[in-house]
Amino acid sequence: MRNNYNQIAGQRTTRIETICDGVFAIAMTLLVLDIKVPIANKMGSEKELTKIFLTLVPKLLSYFLSFITLGIYWAAHSTQFHFIEKSNRHLNWINLFFLLFVSIIPFTTAFLSEYITFKFAIFIYWLNIILLGLILSLHWSYANKNHFISLSENENAQVTKAINRRVLESSLLYTLGALLSFINPYLSILVLIFIQLNYALALLPIFWKRKKTK
Amino acid sequence: MRNNYNQIAGQRTTRIETICDGVFAIAMTLLVLDIKVPIANKMGSEKELTKIFLTLVPKLLSYFLSFITLGIYWAAHSTQFHFIEKSNRHLNWINLFFLLFVSIIPFTTAFLSEYITFKFAIFIYWLNIILLGLILSLHWSYANKNHFISLSENENAQVTKAINRRVLESSLLYTLGALLSFINPYLSILVLIFIQLNYALALLPIFWKRKKTK
Amino acid sequence: MRNNYNQIAGQRTTRIETICDGVFAIAMTLLVLDIKVPIANKMGSEKELTKIFLTLVPKLLSYFLSFITLGIYWAAHSTQFHFIEKSNRHLNWINLFFLLFVSIIPFTTAFLSEYITFKFAIFIYWLNIILLGLILSLHWSYANKNHFISLSENENAQVTKAINRRVLESSLLYTLGALLSFINPYLSILVLIFIQLNYALALLPIFWKRKKTK
Amino acid sequence: MRNNYNQIAGQRTTRIETICDGVFAIAMTLLVLDIKVPIANKMGSEKELTKIFLTLVPKLLSYFLSFITLGIYWAAHSTQFHFIEKSNRHLNWINLFFLLFVSIIPFTTAFLSEYITFKFAIFIYWLNIILLGLILSLHWSYANKNHFISLSENENAQVTKAINRRVLESSLLYTLGALLSFINPYLSILVLIFIQLNYALALLPIFWKRKKTK
Repeated sequence: MRNNYNQIAGQRTTRIETICDGVFAIAMTLLVLDIKVPIANKMGSEKELTKIFLTLVPKLLSYFLSFITLGIYWAAHSTQFHFIEKSNRHLNWINLFFLLFVSIIPFTTAFLSEYITFKFAIFIYWLNIILLGLILSLHWSYANKNHFISLSENENAQVTKAINRRVLESSLLYTLGALLSFINPYLSILVLIFIQLNYALALLPIFWKRKKTK
Repeated sequence: MRNNYNQIAGQRTTRIETICDGVFAIAMTLLVLDIKVPIANKMGSEKELTKIFLTLVPKLLSYFLSFITLGIYWAAHSTQFHFIEKSNRHLNWINLFFLLFVSIIPFTTAFLSEYITFKFAIFIYWLNIILLGLILSLHWSYANKNHFISLSENENAQVTKAINRRVLESSLLYTLGALLSFINPYLSILVLIFIQLNYALALLPIFWKRKKTK
Repeated sequence: MRNNYNQIAGQRTTRIETICDGVFAIAMTLLVLDIKVPIANKMGSEKELTKIFLTLVPKLLSYFLSFITLGIYWAAHSTQFHFIEKSNRHLNWINLFFLLFVSIIPFTTAFLSEYITFKFAIFIYWLNIILLGLILSLHWSYANKNHFISLSENENAQVTKAINRRVLESSLLYTLGALLSFINPYLSILVLIFIQLNYALALLPIFWKRKKTK
Repeated sequence: MRNNYNQIAGQRTTRIETICDGVFAIAMTLLVLDIKVPIANKMGSEKELTKIFLTLVPKLLSYFLSFITLGIYWAAHSTQFHFIEKSNRHLNWINLFFLLFVSIIPFTTAFLSEYITFKFAIFIYWLNIILLGLILSLHWSYANKNHFISLSENENAQVTKAINRRVLESSLLYTLGALLSFINPYLSILVLIFIQLNYALALLPIFWKRKKTK
């Protein structure tokens, strides 16, 4: 009786998905807000303008990295909800905590690009990414335990395995990449970016890879 | 005849829900906009960077508190619309006034964290939260009176009771917490935060609590 | 043949409605971004803090006015789409131009509150509102001409009459209110705000008014 | 087996469309954030206020141009998804890269309006627009190759031809416009704006043009 309210709360998935897309959309454009057109009093030549533009490149790269990271987690979140058809109060809150760490990504990314040679900045960035992975993993296993997933038992086992392997694999890779900062911070960053691009750019082999499943 | 326009207006619930999710998503990320990467001209050691990062902690906590508060009201709003299937012009406006006080939460939260020892800051924060509860309560009772709710009479009575109890209970708790500021402002804040977390972290007992309803 | 592309473009209404809700949600929170917590170095008493808070009141009022104005046009837009079930390329662009003038409302409102005694500021605000009304009117008549509306001929005539009367009536009222600025700017503003509230607060008589239509 | 995760990811189109609308909505209002009400200490006459307002005109025009550009690509994106009914991981990422260049439009537009006489600024703007066209073209052809499109073969051929012709035609026009900057930058800008308006204002002949398709 006491938990009556908690039992009626948060049973739909549409609202979760809409607010997630909203937060992701804002987070994706947050670093753009920082890229201001430089105002120069006197501007003589095309060369000078090009030079001024190049000073923006670090911010553009930071924006690019943040966007890719967010894209990876948006895609992962979207994939889970392809199969989740019900929800409850707790699942709502797991999603909200996920969003909490999503909306902080532009900050941790900008922090990393500002202090690229510091282990502490790499640590904060790594922590953010690892937490997102953990929450997504918890999210799926909670949905699974509560029978919110619209899959046959057999399919479910396969999808669950694929999702868990992905989280485990990527967490290990990110941790390895972060640990490289004890050898060389630049190497660490390069490996981290390479891992990100790898997850995004399964895009590259689009046209020559045959699809094997239906 | 005169009210012809008012009678045709605002009959769907989808638009209300979409704009609510939009406003919530923005409000949830508003305080993130304030967390800027600190720029230091010279940065010698990891220790210094860690110190600089720690100066951001109050802003991060303020962001966290604001996010939790917004999450609580987003979940409450979402829960009501699980059962509301029709709408009219007035219900739209009740929602808009709800959103008005939602979008101001990041401000009242930041105001509270800046002036944490002042009764006036606690009062403003308390007022904001109480108004949100009252509007949600009005929202449900208005929807109920106009038969916008898709529940059998019996279920409706139960849900209505649960919603009203929740609003009353939380309003009393918040008021009690706010009144503690006459004894000690820090105690008051602590109790307020504890109440918030309690409503969010019905999350904690996720895995050991058996679900009693279907 | 030449217009082939234009003929396949923009046939759904869902995307229009989603982007509209997005732009409205952002516009509604735009002025909140301006309300910063005042930072005071020394803060002695509750009285001082209250005083400082009161300096924010003009910004809060400006935010409130902007919100109400946006709410009125969001509700009007939502109402039209309750009946519009198809779309084409042109209707998409009418909506985009509508959004152009929606997103500028926070600016014209803030401009008005900053220069409240100036006819020019009242004129800009009035122009913004009148243009929104005109575009909404064009929107409905265009949708009507192209048979995008899901109503019987009889119902359509009634709804069209109600929509047109509302646009005409409100445009006249706003114009009258704006013209009062030649007598006294404060009177003009007061009347404008009163007209806004009147359209929003058909809310007030919620509980004592019997609904006459089904 | 290895690609198991990639094969289950991103199969729905709703999430893509929602996040796209979110990013577009934010990008559309981004330049509005830059238009601040000018604060004047002493303000004597209506004339002075009008003068001050006129200093905002370049920003308003920049906002207008950015909005139109975004509107064109939003409409094009929306049109493609009218026919695309399935998706996969890769299509999600093509969309994300599309959004990356969408969210940067307010910046490239503002950059252009600040440095309107510079070939470099025109080049950056042109590059942004061309990339958006190319990605949209890739988007359609990828969706087509993977049979994500809900059209009969015959209809598909027609729509594909229309989409490709539109991308090719507009890319050529924009390139021509940009090349004019070697003769005269103002001429180049004027032609670019004219091309934009032409794509938006197929709006103009609304009322006198008969629709030829059903």
